[in-house]
Amino acid sequence: MSSSEFGTDGVPLSWYNICADLGFALPSDLSSSQSTKTADRLRIPMSLLRQERSRARWIPIPEDVVDKYRQWRPTPLRRARALEDALETSCRLYYKYEGGNVSGSHKLNTAVAQAYFYRRAGRRRLTVGTGAGQWGTAIAAACAMFGLDCRVFMVRSSYEAKPHRKTMMELFGAEVVPSPSGSTEYGRRSLASGSDTGGSLGVALAEAVEDGMAPHSAFCAGSGETYALLHQSVIGLETHMQLEELEDRADVVVGSLGAGSNLGGIALPFLGSSLRGGPKLRVVSVEPAACPKLTRGRYAYDYTDASETSPLQKMYTLGHAFAPPTMHAAGLRYHGTSKLISALYARNYLEAVAYPQKAVFESAEIFARAEGIIPAPESAHAIHGARLIAAAADRNGDPRTIVICLSGHGLLDLGAYDAFHSGEMTDVDVSDEQIESSLAALPARRFRER
Amino acid sequence: MSSSEFGTDGVPLSWYNICADLGFALPSDLSSSQSTKTADRLRIPMSLLRQERSRARWIPIPEDVVDKYRQWRPTPLRRARALEDALETSCRLYYKYEGGNVSGSHKLNTAVAQAYFYRRAGRRRLTVGTGAGQWGTAIAAACAMFGLDCRVFMVRSSYEAKPHRKTMMELFGAEVVPSPSGSTEYGRRSLASGSDTGGSLGVALAEAVEDGMAPHSAFCAGSGETYALLHQSVIGLETHMQLEELEDRADVVVGSLGAGSNLGGIALPFLGSSLRGGPKLRVVSVEPAACPKLTRGRYAYDYTDASETSPLQKMYTLGHAFAPPTMHAAGLRYHGTSKLISALYARNYLEAVAYPQKAVFESAEIFARAEGIIPAPESAHAIHGARLIAAAADRNGDPRTIVICLSGHGLLDLGAYDAFHSGEMTDVDVSDEQIESSLAALPARRFRER
Repeated sequence: MSSSEFGTDGVPLSWYNICADLGFALPSDLSSSQSTKTADRLRIPMSLLRQERSRARWIPIPEDVVDKYRQWRPTPLRRARALEDALETSCRLYYKYEGGNVSGSHKLNTAVAQAYFYRRAGRRRLTVGTGAGQWGTAIAAACAMFGLDCRVFMVRSSYEAKPHRKTMMELFGAEVVPSPSGSTEYGRRSLASGSDTGGSLGVALAEAVEDGMAPHSAFCAGSGETYALLHQSVIGLETHMQLEELEDRADVVVGSLGAGSNLGGIALPFLGSSLRGGPKLRVVSVEPAACPKLTRGRYAYDYTDASETSPLQKMYTLGHAFAPPTMHAAGLRYHGTSKLISALYARNYLEAVAYPQKAVFESAEIFARAEGIIPAPESAHAIHGARLIAAAADRNGDPRTIVICLSGHGLLDLGAYDAFHSGEMTDVDVSDEQIESSLAALPARRFRER
Repeated sequence: MSSSEFGTDGVPLSWYNICADLGFALPSDLSSSQSTKTADRLRIPMSLLRQERSRARWIPIPEDVVDKYRQWRPTPLRRARALEDALETSCRLYYKYEGGNVSGSHKLNTAVAQAYFYRRAGRRRLTVGTGAGQWGTAIAAACAMFGLDCRVFMVRSSYEAKPHRKTMMELFGAEVVPSPSGSTEYGRRSLASGSDTGGSLGVALAEAVEDGMAPHSAFCAGSGETYALLHQSVIGLETHMQLEELEDRADVVVGSLGAGSNLGGIALPFLGSSLRGGPKLRVVSVEPAACPKLTRGRYAYDYTDASETSPLQKMYTLGHAFAPPTMHAAGLRYHGTSKLISALYARNYLEAVAYPQKAVFESAEIFARAEGIIPAPESAHAIHGARLIAAAADRNGDPRTIVICLSGHGLLDLGAYDAFHSGEMTDVDVSDEQIESSLAALPARRFRER
């Protein structure tokens, strides 16, 4: 098969695996004896591990997953004409909108796939850790679709500040536990230490990993795994075809960067087409200035969680001990990013920029007024990036076609907009010293390849 | 033209006016000297008044309005297969989803049309009253699209309890004023009386009417006007065509009932087709037991607002002095309903049922888990009605095709779901005495026809 197949309704029937088109392999993960034990007990289904290691370009999407996708896919690709007018740009701006499903973000694309494979592997119950709640919501919805029980460890400060996310997860039948909790050893230790009762994503993940070792259960890793990026390729595959139907072509693809799944989802199918001789294009990652892993981090082996029990991945990281300042795009606060995105960035397949949140919200507000969608604070980073790219292209007298991944809506983030609107929002800065001290705690390379 | 025209993208190019196919005229409005003065000063554009009085079957939608509709129309009609499974019904259930636009409900369909016609008539600023905030959000978004200023008088208790609605309206550039306010005479009187500082929709509307008399301004009536139902016909026109494309046919159309615009929007094009010799079908209105205008009100002339300054409309009403108990479907708390819906109900074109909120939320939760959309509490009434209709059809061994108007999403109503889920929700009852005493205050017929 030379390109993806689509159903007559435009839903992709296979995922795109860029590893087939790369001239290099991703660095292997490393493990300590502790993390080997963890990995063995994580019980990731063989089907997902095979996807992770596959060199096949096209991986058929199981029919049951395609059926679920049809509830909200294909998602719209819209020409942002009103935004173009508002920005007075000669560039053509498009956005791919992934916020129209029940979870409100692109995360459901991989959540349903993961729930499907875990269920087929005999698991009856999934555990996850969630910060702001997007990943938890997506997994809760996916578990409801496939009849799995679900327990979500939610960072306590978010649990208290964002009760609506909890309500949504409970609506889908999930049990939501504020973390640190008394229900795991790690949580109890964390509570006893008394240092961190508001919780953190690292602690929530560690609790979910521990709880996932219960019978018939499994911990469901977040959105930065290579197989998660594979599942997200439906975004870029659809966008590519939709642009073709509009007889247009992307010069620049822009996505915000957290763990990497929305940027990877939209960009990798375009990059792959380019690697196979198609037109060249720029891929631009936009991260928050408060959590600048690509722009200020180091390409090194690091843990993906704070408890130092996960295998180590080679990735751009600020150090697993890095505590990003509180900010409104909570979904972008992860200290590292996917090893696939990292490897591509290290080889200059991607560009990266970082912006402070007030500038990002200014662009979000212009977008909302023009296009009638309130962007998630995370997605707003991509909008702001596109706005600056368009302005630069206009200055150069060289208008471009720019595609934005609008990964989710901001209807559960209106408090952040209120803070911006009322002038209460401040920009949060990260000092070189903070990054240096966190990077100094990176693990020494004393682990064996897995 | 014998049927509506659609753009190649499926967006209707004309509205459907059922008055052309009815064998009777709607009862004229009546006015006191006070309300004549008000009506003269309301400055409703001639274009809207002509639509209100038109006997033409198809009224072309202005190109600028069709362009705005294209941001979110055509909206999806989905077969609710997962819901059918969950309910174990042999009926075919469909839902038309109107929650995918920025305002989150069907109200934007008429808001953009009204903003367009007011602007064309030279107005620069619109004023509205809003209770829960849906209408205010829709008008704020529409004003942003057409470059109009907007002031929203929002019932103070909602303003305080639902800050996110306010944030959304402000995001679209509207000024949101808690009502009663000090900025109108009516508001100041209301504040001075000290009796009603939490506000009510009646007071907010009266304030908006007064403020709308300022230069270059206009008060924008809510969603029960006949021209608002005309604009909403896009819902039913699309649904009718989408069902045809699926080679299916509606036996029953179900909508929730507030002022009448979503029920009218989906049902009137079907009723009209039936009146012109097409297949017969049932139209079922579902109202909350706490505000039962069709099922327990009287068909009589009444004011549409609490300040007794509006013209009188003949409608099913619980009396303009009726104070419905607090409930979660705040958008269905209006004491009356549209004169068009009322006239059709009086002539048995529609059926009406009323249900208490806990039963409604139970159905909403089943729907959310199955279909992946969290319904607005208002829309959930239609889902509950459809569920009971399906159960009855199954018992009769006569499965039917049932179409639900899912008028909006519930992402800003998660507090209500939390109350249901935690067992804190109670049903609210209305006594016969309360209704009788409110109906006793109906105006005597001492007004002249307008």
